Amino acid sequence: MKLATLSHRDEIFVATIDSDNATARPLSIDGRRVADMQAFIEHASASGKNWSESEPIALGEATVLAPIRRPHRNVMCVGKNYYEHAHEFTKSGFDSSASSASDAVPKAPIIFTKMPETVVGTNTKIGYPGNQSQQLDYEAELGVVIGKAGQGIEPADAMGHVFGFVVINDLTARDLQAVHKQWFLGKSFETSCPMGPWLVTADEVDSGNLQVQCWVNGELRQDSNTRDLIFDIPTLIATLSRGMTLLPGDVIATGTPVGVGIGFTPPKFLQSGDKVEVEITGLGRLSNTIR
Amino acid sequence: MKLATLSHRDEIFVATIDSDNATARPLSIDGRRVADMQAFIEHASASGKNWSESEPIALGEATVLAPIRRPHRNVMCVGKNYYEHAHEFTKSGFDSSASSASDAVPKAPIIFTKMPETVVGTNTKIGYPGNQSQQLDYEAELGVVIGKAGQGIEPADAMGHVFGFVVINDLTARDLQAVHKQWFLGKSFETSCPMGPWLVTADEVDSGNLQVQCWVNGELRQDSNTRDLIFDIPTLIATLSRGMTLLPGDVIATGTPVGVGIGFTPPKFLQSGDKVEVEITGLGRLSNTIR
Repeated sequence: MKLATLSHRDEIFVATIDSDNATARPLSIDGRRVADMQAFIEHASASGKNWSESEPIALGEATVLAPIRRPHRNVMCVGKNYYEHAHEFTKSGFDSSASSASDAVPKAPIIFTKMPETVVGTNTKIGYPGNQSQQLDYEAELGVVIGKAGQGIEPADAMGHVFGFVVINDLTARDLQAVHKQWFLGKSFETSCPMGPWLVTADEVDSGNLQVQCWVNGELRQDSNTRDLIFDIPTLIATLSRGMTLLPGDVIATGTPVGVGIGFTPPKFLQSGDKVEVEITGLGRLSNTIR
Repeated sequence: MKLATLSHRDEIFVATIDSDNATARPLSIDGRRVADMQAFIEHASASGKNWSESEPIALGEATVLAPIRRPHRNVMCVGKNYYEHAHEFTKSGFDSSASSASDAVPKAPIIFTKMPETVVGTNTKIGYPGNQSQQLDYEAELGVVIGKAGQGIEPADAMGHVFGFVVINDLTARDLQAVHKQWFLGKSFETSCPMGPWLVTADEVDSGNLQVQCWVNGELRQDSNTRDLIFDIPTLIATLSRGMTLLPGDVIATGTPVGVGIGFTPPKFLQSGDKVEVEITGLGRLSNTIR
């Protein structure tokens, strides 16, 4: 199921998207339209299927919002989770977590967070956090959305806790990420978490074999596959759930592959007017322009 | 005003606490008891005073919960924000943010987060995150609660955005903090954010001159003053609000002073049965036992 949150004639609701990517079918539970993806995830994970689709609308008449407009708590993000990116990042000099090439590849998942309000949808303008940063960078990532709550989840059981997947651009102010040591401030400014266009349910996604691509103004910058993750999705879910309960609607951004702006010499930072597009196999294309 | 969230006869509500610390007066707005501190903060910050106190109850008949039971988004925490603690932490070998003594004192605030569900109240049992950590440590901290929303707040205006203050114990699994590089996982396990007992409004607190103390089993371990903060509260609010909008109910833990367990040789980690007490001038004493 391809799920979207749409704004249509002054109403916001969750809908399925047909395979033609042109038709949307608003979802109802007990005769009422589903207004919020978080509520739908909780309902679907607890009750199984008892929703219905109402009359289709043309997707072109609606605005596609972020599938989860405001996650119920901070988005959890994984740093340096692809080998080649780990090396390009440490080599760039912006990596406060490692001082030498021998330390580039992490021995355990590196986790930081982004505020819930950083999430924006496709076709939203994104941008620099005021005038405090001159070094905005993109990071194409697969986002995992939790369905079934759990603590102490074993890797073998982890995929049973996944509701679906989304495309995320983990926008980063490199100068702030470096100077503040912990990455929250360089990762958590407004519009720093574009997400979408859809949320695709887990049954339709082979999450261990997805191409993750990113273009800036049409130039292909990132082009890797989730099979190259250092810590795979079951490992991430097991690690995160050891000390806390993962909850329905939690979002985990699994890390970005090689090809970010600071991987180039000289670095290629985002500029006003640049168009950044992220696409992952079967999950759609997330497109945002720098304001 | 000294505010608490109480559980009393199967009801949870916000009350003021008299100076005797023995009498509680439940708060009402429009004739209805205030059920939630977040709602009260939003209301009080937007509308000014139009609440009333109802008949007093004996505090001893109620259970004191965390003043903000579940913050609306992750608690923001400042790392290494007292000089002597910055040095003890870097010297301990657990500090992934600095590799040498010359790098111990941060040049900009170090910010990480704890999940909203980590918050627990005074007299709650707290503990190790499963069997994955053997190195649990305490961190006594002044917590700032935001009242008035703002972005790009100037330091000179920052205190006008503060609703009040709380005592926080930023409980930390040192081994997880070190191995995962970014501190979220070592700081965000269940029960890792004891808070309370009260929330004291800003008008009654001289936040730049508060004694911050911590005892373990009656032994005084931390005993410093907020005047020794490296980055003071106005600087923290200005820094955080540069790229994001601070919102009513946001909680900022301002960092811990010298005297944590890893500051000792050998380190003094918390053990089952240990009683940890944190007290800050005028804000009450937060007491928790390790389960």
